Amino acid sequence: MKAEIITIGDEILIGQIVDTNSAYISKELNKIGVSVYQITSIQDEREHILQSLKEASQRADIIIITGGLGPTKDDITKKCLCEYFDDELVCNDKVLKHIENLFEKYIDTPISDLNRDQALLPSKATALHNEYGTAAGMWFESDGKVFISMPGVPYEMRGLMENEIIPRLIKTYSRPVIIHKTVITYGLGESAIAEKIESWEDNLPAEIKLAYLPNLGRVRLRLSARGTNEDHLKSLLDREIETLHSIIGDIIAGLEDDDPIEVVIGKMLVSKNWTISIAESCTGGRLAAKFTKAPGSSASFRGGVVCYATRSKTDLLGVPEELIKQHSVVSAEVAEAMATGAKNKFHTDFAISTTGNAGPNKGDSDAELGTVFIGVATPKGVVAHEFNFGNHREKVIGKAVNKALELIQASILKMGEHI
Amino acid sequence: MKAEIITIGDEILIGQIVDTNSAYISKELNKIGVSVYQITSIQDEREHILQSLKEASQRADIIIITGGLGPTKDDITKKCLCEYFDDELVCNDKVLKHIENLFEKYIDTPISDLNRDQALLPSKATALHNEYGTAAGMWFESDGKVFISMPGVPYEMRGLMENEIIPRLIKTYSRPVIIHKTVITYGLGESAIAEKIESWEDNLPAEIKLAYLPNLGRVRLRLSARGTNEDHLKSLLDREIETLHSIIGDIIAGLEDDDPIEVVIGKMLVSKNWTISIAESCTGGRLAAKFTKAPGSSASFRGGVVCYATRSKTDLLGVPEELIKQHSVVSAEVAEAMATGAKNKFHTDFAISTTGNAGPNKGDSDAELGTVFIGVATPKGVVAHEFNFGNHREKVIGKAVNKALELIQASILKMGEHI
Repeated sequence: MKAEIITIGDEILIGQIVDTNSAYISKELNKIGVSVYQITSIQDEREHILQSLKEASQRADIIIITGGLGPTKDDITKKCLCEYFDDELVCNDKVLKHIENLFEKYIDTPISDLNRDQALLPSKATALHNEYGTAAGMWFESDGKVFISMPGVPYEMRGLMENEIIPRLIKTYSRPVIIHKTVITYGLGESAIAEKIESWEDNLPAEIKLAYLPNLGRVRLRLSARGTNEDHLKSLLDREIETLHSIIGDIIAGLEDDDPIEVVIGKMLVSKNWTISIAESCTGGRLAAKFTKAPGSSASFRGGVVCYATRSKTDLLGVPEELIKQHSVVSAEVAEAMATGAKNKFHTDFAISTTGNAGPNKGDSDAELGTVFIGVATPKGVVAHEFNFGNHREKVIGKAVNKALELIQASILKMGEHI
Repeated sequence: MKAEIITIGDEILIGQIVDTNSAYISKELNKIGVSVYQITSIQDEREHILQSLKEASQRADIIIITGGLGPTKDDITKKCLCEYFDDELVCNDKVLKHIENLFEKYIDTPISDLNRDQALLPSKATALHNEYGTAAGMWFESDGKVFISMPGVPYEMRGLMENEIIPRLIKTYSRPVIIHKTVITYGLGESAIAEKIESWEDNLPAEIKLAYLPNLGRVRLRLSARGTNEDHLKSLLDREIETLHSIIGDIIAGLEDDDPIEVVIGKMLVSKNWTISIAESCTGGRLAAKFTKAPGSSASFRGGVVCYATRSKTDLLGVPEELIKQHSVVSAEVAEAMATGAKNKFHTDFAISTTGNAGPNKGDSDAELGTVFIGVATPKGVVAHEFNFGNHREKVIGKAVNKALELIQASILKMGEHI
């Protein structure tokens, strides 16, 4: 069962937007055992769209198309699908009703013919309800293949995937089982790990494939198992991960949940009824943005301070001016005082702080570029850790965010054991 | 001059990472007049890689490949390139020296044979210096086509593009001129705009193509001009944008700079020697993260508070408890008090605040889901604006961030005129 994703839109090919849709669609398909064989991004251009549909249908069983469904002249996907399936547009009354409703409820401008024309759909397509927008999804079946067309607006596409497409795919196909388990390691590079686990890797069962995913200070090892018997695959994976632990257990931080680490942290905190706050300098709000991304994050996350200006560390977090003068703003002492300050000001059980020089220029400190101190305050006290994350601003900030999350996760785990 | 990008890596096809590299590469190529015709993402699989190289060479003149250059067994791009070009691997001494240097300077673990093997490159390739990593870039010329291979690690890839690949492409090819100008509009949907500008759109000169880019409350109109004479294209674009102003000038907010809006705001502030701070509730640190993303942002951005817990609005920003009780935490009054609080605490000229219900559940307020108040404090006073951004958490937060940036930009512009 192979799928191909075709994303249509000049804005992708000129780099005006990043295609996040394909990653989302791939992940959701993978969960139900559908592999994505290829992702193809092309412009809003008739010949290229038709050619890509043809090629994709030769490679894949399920062809998922996003983009090009807007009401304006540059959106031609619907026309191309009509041409491809030798079909014609007819008005879908249910879709028309939905468009009229959306306009009535949420949109200030009066509905126009262009909007109403969005209810014109190819007669051979089954319309898929787009709760959040005016462009309906479409489902075609042809020569044993399924073609699905969705708008490119991310939240509209996600609604369609969740409510319409995934349930239909599950009903339509019997699918193999694909299970991924990702082991997180810290502290060794990918080649050093590869050497240590070489003979284990060479003897993996045929059902399991290994991939190394290095990124900003951590290497993740992804084991992908593919087959028909879920229980068998699970026990195979468990056995191999156990063996892996016996070889490199000292650098394994755990298994990657389907959840990102900040969500895992949130769940750990909520389960203990603990709270957290943040004091950020060099990470500039990115840690807070991570924590608040998940719905329900307010259950454990109380808030944060981004104290970019040195003075704000004193004014908002109560870091003593003297301490900054004595040790410089990029120092273990200031990182600790920031974490303690956040913990006190927000009345939380835990707090984490960052202060460093991400570059490109040195700020109010003489610390070397790439130097970052991360402070961790827990109910038991406060500590700071020093790192040098190298010579590239994005890399330094990214690594600092990852490391801060790792450190706080470790502290919460440790505190949980004590209690 | 057409390019195709091939990104190789299972992690893209299972949705474990978002492919941000393609957007970056496309943008950089576009700037020098090279159009990207297709982006193809495929797995680390020999046959598929070879097939994709062949197909791409039939479609494009420049084939850019990312990924699969790591030291471990799952990385097979180099081998596939050898096979494709009927070539063999030889040791590149300069690359070996660089790898040894990187290990000596930045990496704790001792260098291994796997690392040294990264200096083995196809004999027909020109090695491209990868300043930030051990995997060299490669440049092949064959039958009038250029094939370029880069690692998939984003900052390594970006260094190679900037220092090695773009300069070489400029030297190798004479290229057409491509100019994009993007007009930002607020307040009307894309179909309503399309109707207003229909006859203008129909009469655009052949060199200019129009695209509608709707996203979270703003529609951008991108005009792309393509030709050989830069001055001619520029004056064509200027003329058409002038005409556009005469038709829908009332909803045009300006031209999109190559810079994102937060960078434009930063530059506006620095030019006047003004500063800004932020108080965020529902946007949870995303505004601060936007402002601090750009190098040099500390010149105008002093800091921010993410006051997720209601109490922290009082404790950190001095919003009176009484005010919150009286008007609820999601109200114009609290938004204003938050902005004023940030402005005072951080000693800045401007401040912006957000408070709202992004969902999925109501928080400490009875305000309808989707309701957001944005406060703007300037040297002249403070105001709050009320919005309803609908029924989807991501959409509400995204629109709130965009709208906050627009409002603060407008205020700074207005203040600039007064002075």
